Amino acid sequence: MAKEVEADTKGITVKKFDDMPEWYGQVVTKAQLADYSPVKGCMVIRPKGYALWQAIMDRFNQMLAEDGVENAYFPLFIPESFFKKEAEHAEGFTPEVAWIEKKEESGERLAIRPTSETIMYDSYSRWIRSWRDLPLKINQWCNIVRWEVQDVKLFLRSREFLWQEGHCVYETHEEANTETLHYLERYRQIAEEYLAVPTLFGKKTEREKFAGALVTYGIEGIMPDGKALQMGTSHDLGQNFANAFNITFQGRDEERQLPWQNSWGISTRMIGALVMTHADDKGLVLPPRVARNKLVIIPIIFKGKEHVHEEAKKLAHELAAFAPILDDREEYSAGWKYNKYELDGTPLRVEIGPRDIENHQVIVVRRDTGEKLTLKREGLAPAVAALLETIQADMFAKAKREMLARIVEVEDYAAFTRAIEEKQAILCGHCGGTDCENEIRSELAAKTRIIPFGDAGKPKPGEACIKCGEPAKYRVYFARAY
Amino acid sequence: MAKEVEADTKGITVKKFDDMPEWYGQVVTKAQLADYSPVKGCMVIRPKGYALWQAIMDRFNQMLAEDGVENAYFPLFIPESFFKKEAEHAEGFTPEVAWIEKKEESGERLAIRPTSETIMYDSYSRWIRSWRDLPLKINQWCNIVRWEVQDVKLFLRSREFLWQEGHCVYETHEEANTETLHYLERYRQIAEEYLAVPTLFGKKTEREKFAGALVTYGIEGIMPDGKALQMGTSHDLGQNFANAFNITFQGRDEERQLPWQNSWGISTRMIGALVMTHADDKGLVLPPRVARNKLVIIPIIFKGKEHVHEEAKKLAHELAAFAPILDDREEYSAGWKYNKYELDGTPLRVEIGPRDIENHQVIVVRRDTGEKLTLKREGLAPAVAALLETIQADMFAKAKREMLARIVEVEDYAAFTRAIEEKQAILCGHCGGTDCENEIRSELAAKTRIIPFGDAGKPKPGEACIKCGEPAKYRVYFARAY
Repeated sequence: MAKEVEADTKGITVKKFDDMPEWYGQVVTKAQLADYSPVKGCMVIRPKGYALWQAIMDRFNQMLAEDGVENAYFPLFIPESFFKKEAEHAEGFTPEVAWIEKKEESGERLAIRPTSETIMYDSYSRWIRSWRDLPLKINQWCNIVRWEVQDVKLFLRSREFLWQEGHCVYETHEEANTETLHYLERYRQIAEEYLAVPTLFGKKTEREKFAGALVTYGIEGIMPDGKALQMGTSHDLGQNFANAFNITFQGRDEERQLPWQNSWGISTRMIGALVMTHADDKGLVLPPRVARNKLVIIPIIFKGKEHVHEEAKKLAHELAAFAPILDDREEYSAGWKYNKYELDGTPLRVEIGPRDIENHQVIVVRRDTGEKLTLKREGLAPAVAALLETIQADMFAKAKREMLARIVEVEDYAAFTRAIEEKQAILCGHCGGTDCENEIRSELAAKTRIIPFGDAGKPKPGEACIKCGEPAKYRVYFARAY
Repeated sequence: MAKEVEADTKGITVKKFDDMPEWYGQVVTKAQLADYSPVKGCMVIRPKGYALWQAIMDRFNQMLAEDGVENAYFPLFIPESFFKKEAEHAEGFTPEVAWIEKKEESGERLAIRPTSETIMYDSYSRWIRSWRDLPLKINQWCNIVRWEVQDVKLFLRSREFLWQEGHCVYETHEEANTETLHYLERYRQIAEEYLAVPTLFGKKTEREKFAGALVTYGIEGIMPDGKALQMGTSHDLGQNFANAFNITFQGRDEERQLPWQNSWGISTRMIGALVMTHADDKGLVLPPRVARNKLVIIPIIFKGKEHVHEEAKKLAHELAAFAPILDDREEYSAGWKYNKYELDGTPLRVEIGPRDIENHQVIVVRRDTGEKLTLKREGLAPAVAALLETIQADMFAKAKREMLARIVEVEDYAAFTRAIEEKQAILCGHCGGTDCENEIRSELAAKTRIIPFGDAGKPKPGEACIKCGEPAKYRVYFARAY
């Protein structure tokens, strides 16, 4: 007897555009990517969610190897005095920090890392002696704690999350800055070419830059609800931390010099962006490149059972390169299985029944569009490979089209206000003043996201600030944000 | 001009058997595997050390995939009440726990995980409903904090370390216990077949078992100083935690039942065992399987420079499968390079000079034995592959021979005392009494390690306890320990 109901495959009970927060929570928990935790502000990453993180780690580790960056691991605990060494950094992070209860009389107060600049650069100051030790390019995969989070949004906002943080040291500012932008480009590749999530990229305003950086660059998505999601940042740290941590090197000219640094990070938030962007009313939709199992094979059994099972097994063997799931369980109906793998986001469903065997064909259904195709058995593997690449490209193109449709350019603050209330993101001129930025923030909860590179970030001739009317310094994206 | 001196390649200044703790610290820091940290009790794992951990992770992840275990991630923080649910567990771990300073009035005290049974099983109690959800097999790679450590021993003992912890749930005790032993066998494979570190394996005594377990199994090494090093443990948890965390499932008989569980872990300690076992007075010695770069190619240049460089490049291309380092820098002498790669532990050094080119040969030097071989250029790659396997096998065989030579069987407590003082490990009969075990511990700092499986763990007919003279319950290894 077919079991039609299982607790975790009841399906999503709310539509994406009716109640996005509720919908998002249901997709993440019912597709078993993550779960809430009894620890306030924390989440549990379940195997299906961790597999996505592993895929991102594997892809990014390949890039790191190409770029000559090596992985290492530094302590979870940071002495309070380290935080205080770089004044802006201390001010920016102290409110977010969780501290360990002191056990020893003598001991200094210890923080749980909210980011690792200070603990890493203390070691760097001992490791770097000469220009021959540069560039020093180190990355760390680890857990991070930022205590200010009260209400967890799975993957998007939690007290603890997983990330990578790259920390490099160079002889010249030019090299440091070039590479700061290079890692931003790597993030764009991960987001767009791997997760099929479109991004805006550019520079953060003074108000929004990383505490202690000269300049912060970022990639940002505009989610289907018009809210921006910061997906990765790359900071040109200048010599601020080198100064604070006394990192020096003997230059080619035999003189002692301060090196130049950058730091850059992406986190499990990327998974949130992936879900938000692609999932639909039926559940998760995974881009083929990131999906562990690219397809599921479902035998359609109403007669000639043995024969169909045998052919389904052959099919699984033929399509082994796509890590197929062969779901030939007889206690579940085909309809139940369709629902399950739609919820799971498996990119392709391959059905094979007695008639398909007769006709030397299979039925293939795309998860992203629901489109049903008939493919010949002969030459199936290359056809599937091509179809998966088409799905990947289509998913990105659709997401990009939709993201761009959520961004408007406005000429005055009334239109700005209306656009924010209509859940749109905005590109407009701004004076660059932090006070002015703060006013918009307090009035509309809209924040500057990034100043696009190139001409798109330059004000038009005579353009005024959208809020205060002073001359615009740049054009910048505004949006409410996760 | 050749630079003969660099801070980190000054070489080891003390011999392994003259002062093992000092020697060990020098090997680990000078080969740049790890460094001390300004945070008391903590270490920094440098890229060369992390590469070894990554190699272990990659190999073990393959095994997990074969065994159907999936990776996940649970919170770093554990509510105090969770610890208290399993009484023995709470008693065992509470003294080691670091706590977070409370920020909220309402909030419960939170621990930094010293192990994750409690936080994971709380989730398990919600995820498991039916026998169809079993077995549930989850692993986590993460950082762990045990606060009792005062003086760090790099990789061997530190307040924070990296590990994996597997946590599985089964329908029957038989299945749980069989798999508990299976994961112990996996650890033996990692230690012996991958790291070439020989192990003793068996069961822990009641006193030494994991807090909350029915039975703890372990693999243990006897290091060159006669001290035992616990390398991995696998716990049959019975139904203790299922009971405490209210994990139940509807059985095949439709009745609600308590499942059976195990947990098992290995840590960055494995790297300590690797160093201790294989390194020598010149530095690190890496078994070929775990070495990222299996060989270094050093061109010997005294005439016909261009030609030698060209041939060295060809060689690197031919041997690409072994991820060779080609060190053709001219500012360092060949002698300096020999020292550097000996310190680094690179398994093979391949030298090529004008005479070798003429004679269609290369000179190959084994790091493990120092043996110098002349190999024909023709068919070099397969010869190198075979040689690397020989090195791997020889390293294990030598280490095993040496370990077994450190273990003695004794008949009385006088001989026992002498053996311990002479830095040997002991296999002898014991009554099984915890008090008796404690007495030996306080008199000689010798602890029971494991009771070997099979006949080796059974007392001989009429055998008495080495200490109290009561009838022996089992034979067990005793040693001082890391």
